[in-house]
Amino acid sequence: LISHRQDSILHSRTMSQARVLNVDTMNPNVKRIEYAVRGPIVQRAVQIEKELKEGVKKPFTEVIKANIGDAHAMGQKPITFFRQVIALCAYPDLLEDDKFPEDAKNRARRILQACGGGSLGAYSASSGIEVIRQDVAKYIEKRDSGIPSNPDDIYLSTGASDAIVTMLKLLTSGEGKTRTGVMISIPQYPLYSAALAELAAVQISYYLDEDKCWSLDVNELRRAVKAAREHCNPRALCIINPGNPTGQVQNRQCIEDVIRFAAEEHLFLMADEVYQDNVYMEGCQFHSFKKVLFEMGSEYSSVVELASFHSTSKCYMGECGFRGGYMEVINMDPDVKLQLTKLVSVQLCPSIPGQALLDLVVNPPQPDEPSYATFIKERTANLHILSEKAKMTEQVLNTVPGIHCNPVQGAMYTFPRLTLPEKAINAEQAPDMFYCMKLLEEMGICLVPGSGFGQRDGTYHFRMTILPATEKLKIVLEKIREFHKRFTEEFS
Amino acid sequence: LISHRQDSILHSRTMSQARVLNVDTMNPNVKRIEYAVRGPIVQRAVQIEKELKEGVKKPFTEVIKANIGDAHAMGQKPITFFRQVIALCAYPDLLEDDKFPEDAKNRARRILQACGGGSLGAYSASSGIEVIRQDVAKYIEKRDSGIPSNPDDIYLSTGASDAIVTMLKLLTSGEGKTRTGVMISIPQYPLYSAALAELAAVQISYYLDEDKCWSLDVNELRRAVKAAREHCNPRALCIINPGNPTGQVQNRQCIEDVIRFAAEEHLFLMADEVYQDNVYMEGCQFHSFKKVLFEMGSEYSSVVELASFHSTSKCYMGECGFRGGYMEVINMDPDVKLQLTKLVSVQLCPSIPGQALLDLVVNPPQPDEPSYATFIKERTANLHILSEKAKMTEQVLNTVPGIHCNPVQGAMYTFPRLTLPEKAINAEQAPDMFYCMKLLEEMGICLVPGSGFGQRDGTYHFRMTILPATEKLKIVLEKIREFHKRFTEEFS
Ligand SMILES: Cc1ncc(COP(=O)(O)O)c(C=O)c1O
Ligand SMILES: Cc1ncc(COP(=O)(O)O)c(C=O)c1O
Repeated sequence: LISHRQDSILHSRTMSQARVLNVDTMNPNVKRIEYAVRGPIVQRAVQIEKELKEGVKKPFTEVIKANIGDAHAMGQKPITFFRQVIALCAYPDLLEDDKFPEDAKNRARRILQACGGGSLGAYSASSGIEVIRQDVAKYIEKRDSGIPSNPDDIYLSTGASDAIVTMLKLLTSGEGKTRTGVMISIPQYPLYSAALAELAAVQISYYLDEDKCWSLDVNELRRAVKAAREHCNPRALCIINPGNPTGQVQNRQCIEDVIRFAAEEHLFLMADEVYQDNVYMEGCQFHSFKKVLFEMGSEYSSVVELASFHSTSKCYMGECGFRGGYMEVINMDPDVKLQLTKLVSVQLCPSIPGQALLDLVVNPPQPDEPSYATFIKERTANLHILSEKAKMTEQVLNTVPGIHCNPVQGAMYTFPRLTLPEKAINAEQAPDMFYCMKLLEEMGICLVPGSGFGQRDGTYHFRMTILPATEKLKIVLEKIREFHKRFTEEFS
Repeated sequence: LISHRQDSILHSRTMSQARVLNVDTMNPNVKRIEYAVRGPIVQRAVQIEKELKEGVKKPFTEVIKANIGDAHAMGQKPITFFRQVIALCAYPDLLEDDKFPEDAKNRARRILQACGGGSLGAYSASSGIEVIRQDVAKYIEKRDSGIPSNPDDIYLSTGASDAIVTMLKLLTSGEGKTRTGVMISIPQYPLYSAALAELAAVQISYYLDEDKCWSLDVNELRRAVKAAREHCNPRALCIINPGNPTGQVQNRQCIEDVIRFAAEEHLFLMADEVYQDNVYMEGCQFHSFKKVLFEMGSEYSSVVELASFHSTSKCYMGECGFRGGYMEVINMDPDVKLQLTKLVSVQLCPSIPGQALLDLVVNPPQPDEPSYATFIKERTANLHILSEKAKMTEQVLNTVPGIHCNPVQGAMYTFPRLTLPEKAINAEQAPDMFYCMKLLEEMGICLVPGSGFGQRDGTYHFRMTILPATEKLKIVLEKIREFHKRFTEEFS
């Protein structure tokens, strides 16, 4: 019997070794990817939710997820006009229905006319539907006080993620010391490190200055690029503004400095501006890299290569599930643009409902249209609530001894610094992972440890979204306060 | 003056050389990609359409595009039920509307309940919404006569393209002689060669047998893999069934042979089955690789690793624009599955409208539901028309001297062989590119040259979809007949 059992263990072992695809034979670049926003904490949270459903007793009755920038999942309602138009496009019989406002019908007709066969079900051009690219260009022109935007520079995408990965892919070449290096902020949004790992490009980390509200210091960029030139070929600089996970909003001066730095150091600029409407703090304002670049004069605007990214997922609409987005490329080599068009052709086209939704974001109801008032009301309310939650988050967290929280100037996150007791730091896990896992188990609150985004050695953070509904956010903040106190006592 | 002009030429040259990103510095793997389905012919077709609109006189009044498998663009209408449910999901106020049938409302409610915050606008789990993965598993079980399918083996995707590229990515590793080689048919769907170029994996070509209705001969697989083992590490075998661009449907025996071959040669199987409903020829039937594998007994079903792919884009629904799809993985190493889940997490999730549409495809109206009759009528009509067009295409093309067309057993394409006159072959362009470009300029018909899919040296083909509406398809076929005759005379 024993021998039979051993046999079968042996057999199953041989089997597993014999697999064509196993962890030893698979793509090593994929293995190197780390992705915390959906990592072990989140997986455990999903498990706990199932356990709660099955009646397992816990010190809480629901898991509150503040781990991901997903507004609708947290209860934010869609913009009525947007969804009316999508419904009309999906089922054009509704164009006969009196319940829909005329402006929604007009938008739907216009989108459908631009679709193959008048259907959301046709593939579009790979760079996106032409009319929508034109609308995007107009939106950018208006946003940037009239600085021209060319529809031929616009590429629609499957969320901003898709366009960001595509740009990084184009930029990656060389081997060894000539391998492409890409500068990304620390803390960062982990899409960047993941894409660089997958492409086997070199990540060049520059640190944001926590003591100055997570601002970007050009001297730190200089330090980082200089060190990197020893072992790779730095070719691109990525900026997230407003910032994820750190919630800062860059001032104009800083953007100018960054552009000058990119020109001096001959770097391709990638500006991730998916939070462009999410600015809460008085005195802060969103400045697009494109606009600042052009206002700096042709010395810069005719040479600095820039790709900027936007998405339907954030701002006031939060339509993550539609996977809409675009990038605008400035000063891109025309031959590279042909290559880019070819590259995106391989996967045919971005989702058409996503493209349609993006069209509504860049071309919302106008003052003379029937849906205008409701649209403005909904948009204002969403942004106002976010702004209140940003302030509340900062205020409450800063009342907790051992937590320091910078102002949430924009975006949807805070990245507060934790003073952790020594015994917690000697634990086997990363200390902030240990902290967040315990917070989840004891309080039912799901955050992401700072180590998932990068932080200076010896500092500890978590990232938390400000998205839970106000009443829930209050509970989250109170529970964190209580937990932090207990945790500090337990491990001191 | 001259010196000033020279100066500025010099300046602009320096500028273009000075770009960070240019064709010399960009990713060389991207440069190597070829993608004919949207290549020069299609770009010229778009241009000609613009010229026609501007009033330029041509020997035709519209361009008929038979270059891409895009049913809605060619006039096929969406399935009513599918679009009703999507509209209900997009704008749930419509759930109060009496005009919608109860089954559509029930499906919409069920999908929304499975969405974060009850909204299509929330991100889902990266592998897709759980309820939908369960529905996919049930669909597969039913399709495969009860052979079990596990929702944990299902990964939803952004069209089949996305999942295919993801699988190829996982499989790629090694350098030089140990670099992953992937077997693909010639002719092939160019997504495969493009993805392999991008990944710098080795393409191993096996030829389909044109003289036997484009069937697959295992001896040819043996020849190809043996030759490849000299210079790379063959690890995967891709099959498209029903076939694009060749329209063949594999018989059961052939699938068994392929599975045995994969087991012997230790290859991971990738079965692209996006045309699984598109079988037209009497005596032909779709057999899924999964089903045949399991019917071959545990000797095979417990060891052969298989990923199979499906999509919302083809079959009777043709919903390309929604970018819905899934893959099922069989015998995949559990650790690799974790890596796969991590990898797909980086881009957050597939489009939710696409996931919703996929759910309807795998869970359509049932006999006791109010929408059943209409659904069946629409589905049957779509498939019937495709079947008629398949027959008509074969028949008419085979009446043209110098064109030989295999039966269109399935899928949406024919790949007829052209006998070209000698002077056309001596042209500077690839002869079938020359042929198709001339056909476009003179007749306004847009096809893709065979060279874009691969073909045996010295043979020439084009790929044509059977999707234009019947009346248009007749025109297309007549025009090809006329053109081929003239072309043959002109270049003889
Ligand atoms: C900074 C930043 N960039 C890009 C993205 C990608 O968003 P999406 O792909 O949904 O547009 C996110 C999402 O959270 C983000 O925070
Ligand atoms: C054989 C085959 N596989 C995959 C695809 C990809 O389709 P999608 O990404 O739209 O699902 C196509 C599209 O034409 C195809 O023909």
